[in-house]
Amino acid sequence: MTAIDLNSDLGESYGAWAMGDDEAMLSIVSSANVACGFHAGDPVGILKTVKAAAERGVSIGAHVSYPDRVGFGRRDMDVTSAELTADVIYQIGALKGVATAAGVTVGYVKPHGALYNRIAHDPKQGQAVIDGIKAIDPDLVMMGLAGSPILDLARASGLKVVAEAFADRAYTPSGALVSRREAGAVLHDTALIARRMLQLAHEGTIEAIDGSTIKIEAHSICVHGDSPGAVAIAREIRQAFEKDGITVQSFLNR
Amino acid sequence: MTAIDLNSDLGESYGAWAMGDDEAMLSIVSSANVACGFHAGDPVGILKTVKAAAERGVSIGAHVSYPDRVGFGRRDMDVTSAELTADVIYQIGALKGVATAAGVTVGYVKPHGALYNRIAHDPKQGQAVIDGIKAIDPDLVMMGLAGSPILDLARASGLKVVAEAFADRAYTPSGALVSRREAGAVLHDTALIARRMLQLAHEGTIEAIDGSTIKIEAHSICVHGDSPGAVAIAREIRQAFEKDGITVQSFLNR
Amino acid sequence: MTAIDLNSDLGESYGAWAMGDDEAMLSIVSSANVACGFHAGDPVGILKTVKAAAERGVSIGAHVSYPDRVGFGRRDMDVTSAELTADVIYQIGALKGVATAAGVTVGYVKPHGALYNRIAHDPKQGQAVIDGIKAIDPDLVMMGLAGSPILDLARASGLKVVAEAFADRAYTPSGALVSRREAGAVLHDTALIARRMLQLAHEGTIEAIDGSTIKIEAHSICVHGDSPGAVAIAREIRQAFEKDGITVQSFLNR
Amino acid sequence: MTAIDLNSDLGESYGAWAMGDDEAMLSIVSSANVACGFHAGDPVGILKTVKAAAERGVSIGAHVSYPDRVGFGRRDMDVTSAELTADVIYQIGALKGVATAAGVTVGYVKPHGALYNRIAHDPKQGQAVIDGIKAIDPDLVMMGLAGSPILDLARASGLKVVAEAFADRAYTPSGALVSRREAGAVLHDTALIARRMLQLAHEGTIEAIDGSTIKIEAHSICVHGDSPGAVAIAREIRQAFEKDGITVQSFLNR
Repeated sequence: MTAIDLNSDLGESYGAWAMGDDEAMLSIVSSANVACGFHAGDPVGILKTVKAAAERGVSIGAHVSYPDRVGFGRRDMDVTSAELTADVIYQIGALKGVATAAGVTVGYVKPHGALYNRIAHDPKQGQAVIDGIKAIDPDLVMMGLAGSPILDLARASGLKVVAEAFADRAYTPSGALVSRREAGAVLHDTALIARRMLQLAHEGTIEAIDGSTIKIEAHSICVHGDSPGAVAIAREIRQAFEKDGITVQSFLNR
Repeated sequence: MTAIDLNSDLGESYGAWAMGDDEAMLSIVSSANVACGFHAGDPVGILKTVKAAAERGVSIGAHVSYPDRVGFGRRDMDVTSAELTADVIYQIGALKGVATAAGVTVGYVKPHGALYNRIAHDPKQGQAVIDGIKAIDPDLVMMGLAGSPILDLARASGLKVVAEAFADRAYTPSGALVSRREAGAVLHDTALIARRMLQLAHEGTIEAIDGSTIKIEAHSICVHGDSPGAVAIAREIRQAFEKDGITVQSFLNR
Repeated sequence: MTAIDLNSDLGESYGAWAMGDDEAMLSIVSSANVACGFHAGDPVGILKTVKAAAERGVSIGAHVSYPDRVGFGRRDMDVTSAELTADVIYQIGALKGVATAAGVTVGYVKPHGALYNRIAHDPKQGQAVIDGIKAIDPDLVMMGLAGSPILDLARASGLKVVAEAFADRAYTPSGALVSRREAGAVLHDTALIARRMLQLAHEGTIEAIDGSTIKIEAHSICVHGDSPGAVAIAREIRQAFEKDGITVQSFLNR
Repeated sequence: MTAIDLNSDLGESYGAWAMGDDEAMLSIVSSANVACGFHAGDPVGILKTVKAAAERGVSIGAHVSYPDRVGFGRRDMDVTSAELTADVIYQIGALKGVATAAGVTVGYVKPHGALYNRIAHDPKQGQAVIDGIKAIDPDLVMMGLAGSPILDLARASGLKVVAEAFADRAYTPSGALVSRREAGAVLHDTALIARRMLQLAHEGTIEAIDGSTIKIEAHSICVHGDSPGAVAIAREIRQAFEKDGITVQSFLNR
């Protein structure tokens, strides 16, 4: 691999409440998963983030969520397929409108939080999300967890997909993320994280939590930016890639 | 005039709460002012209304509002220009997304409730709305009160506009709406309303509350549908027009 | 049994949206499950309903819910125990405030919709609800499905409980409600419903969907009022009880 | 004066979004204006703040607001009196519930943001707030701007009141706050602020923006804590008072 995408969750401030350092992250990542107002983001803040991304040539993705602002979209919800499809259409539409106002386009969709985790193993909600994406714009790429069935479902439905890995998360031997409730699930050692991501980019493998080496085919890496430490990790990963001759570039620009 | 537009506020249900009889009104009007989620409307309901409008060839307008669901957008709010512009972009974008999913387009924008009344005399908020419309789609037509300064402001900003009259409202001698707080502000006599609208279409005039005849240049007439009586009035107006050889037709289709 | 309680979900209007006929139902029931703002109800509407209940001597219960207005509290949510306990405290507190303003008190708590169904079999969320009730007022009675484990859990935690049956629902042979997704789950025959409720009151039994007779120990019966037909059923049940010498009376007044 | 109250706006986090440093401020102030969920605060966060205040013996006030979370209650709204009264009752009730769960009581009410400013000169909305306070608990003290007519209105309505001054704000010669839009409206010099507050406490006077000395009768001083600098100013004021023999103490404890 000579190029890889770095993505991050942005536009997550809300009204008077700030979250993350969008400016810092936009100088690091190549793709911005922008909140659409259901778990985070208000119109004036979303517009600001999209304009800042546009100025830096960072790709825009719709970070669609369950309608649960107080829970930040992190709580599983039993929504119906009709509700979910319409919620996805509405959110993508709103972000497309903001992107148009900023002179750019929305290129992909990444479900957020509990919805992201749910559709990895729930084909009913997964199909509802896919149906929403296809209804508004079948050219949108769907981003999902590398190795998860949702990517196959989306591909079978005619969507382009991009698989992502998580820089700061441990993996099980079967390629799933280790649950946050278990020890060692989240990595904090910047140098270690950078080494793991280089191995992922060069060899398509990663060391699982049991020490075994597993294959992970990912063309995008999710980095976080909601704390100063997280921004530093993201910057370190980018620098490690560039030092090694790997271009950080949106998957949409290839 | 040989053709006139009838518009009505639709898509105003919310979750488990129903409002109005969208099916009935869509068989009467030529333009649907569809709620965008800020004063009313949830994604699944908005999608349903837009699909029903699409099936009948009724034009779709974005009924943008202050963010005040519990107040139904009827309470004046001191929003900043930046907030208002972004709110307008977001709402129009969301409705455009839903319209795309339904295979149609959004053709115009009608501010709702307190925002409608505010911008009629507040050029600062008015300009913020205009800026939002232009930022997302400068081809959108802006609907406003016949004779009000907002139409001039929109025109001067390069937007196409359409002036509307209200079927069931009394007018002052200067062409403004009589305040709802005053006696006689709202008309209920179906036959009288129909006669007034015929006069408006044929002669461009209406009888003001003091008995004087005033000029009203309107190419669209707003009819309501939130009660059985209101639907009956709307139907009567349409029949009166058709009997008199005036086609009910969206202003977008001319 | 010589007296029984009739309860109904009230105060479920929201802003400009009406739901149910609170006035009609308050002349029928002895207990009002009043929405607290999370699934339905806004302050001005809740206050109106509580005042109307106060005038008729109808008991007030807090109809607490997941925070899901657009889903009317009908969608299962994976809230944490800390969130749920605090949400319950907040909602009961708000309703207590409104009740104080109306000169009455809140006597019981009935979880709403998806939360009601969830805690019937989820002791973790059930305990969180119980903890919330006890934290704000351990004298509040908890209303739950007759025969469900949540009532035992609440009793073991020191709360008084009242078991309720549903007038218009079919029961499985094991005493659970037949799922709404199955045929025959909801009863519509007014006379049949009234006979079943009389049998329940006199003999503590009901005919299950397979024709077997099962024991149901309930001191309150839930009747609905969200349609003219539902109000008629509720009225019929009350008249049947009164004709048979059974007083309709809040369980709090015994 | 040998004792004075310091109050601060707390509990203003929301869901995943943090605001202010409640822990730090609770070690400085004697009264906590706690958000009630309308402009800020969710139940779990409000409960946490109230518990922390309870542990330190800090008085609890209800920081009631317009229902405008995305605007943080900072935007003037034309609510009706009935809506405002009910909104006030609901919010105070909710906070009373949380306080009960924490083993303490709510002692006062401070309107927030745009509502605070509006009622200073709008007796209609002011009376609606007063009516709400009296309806739920006539023993609650109402906090308002020193010298503003709302305090007279509240007193005439039978409420106890407490007048407050703002530590970091400039005053006009007539005793009003200099608008934030004007230069010099907000003070940043910690030592200057502390000196001004000492003068206020000792002599009941303050230097207005034109250099004249005006009388300000205030028994509480509002300090802010939404930035590290603001916390430092608040701490400095407290230390200056203590060095000068003035006890920082809630007005409720006298």
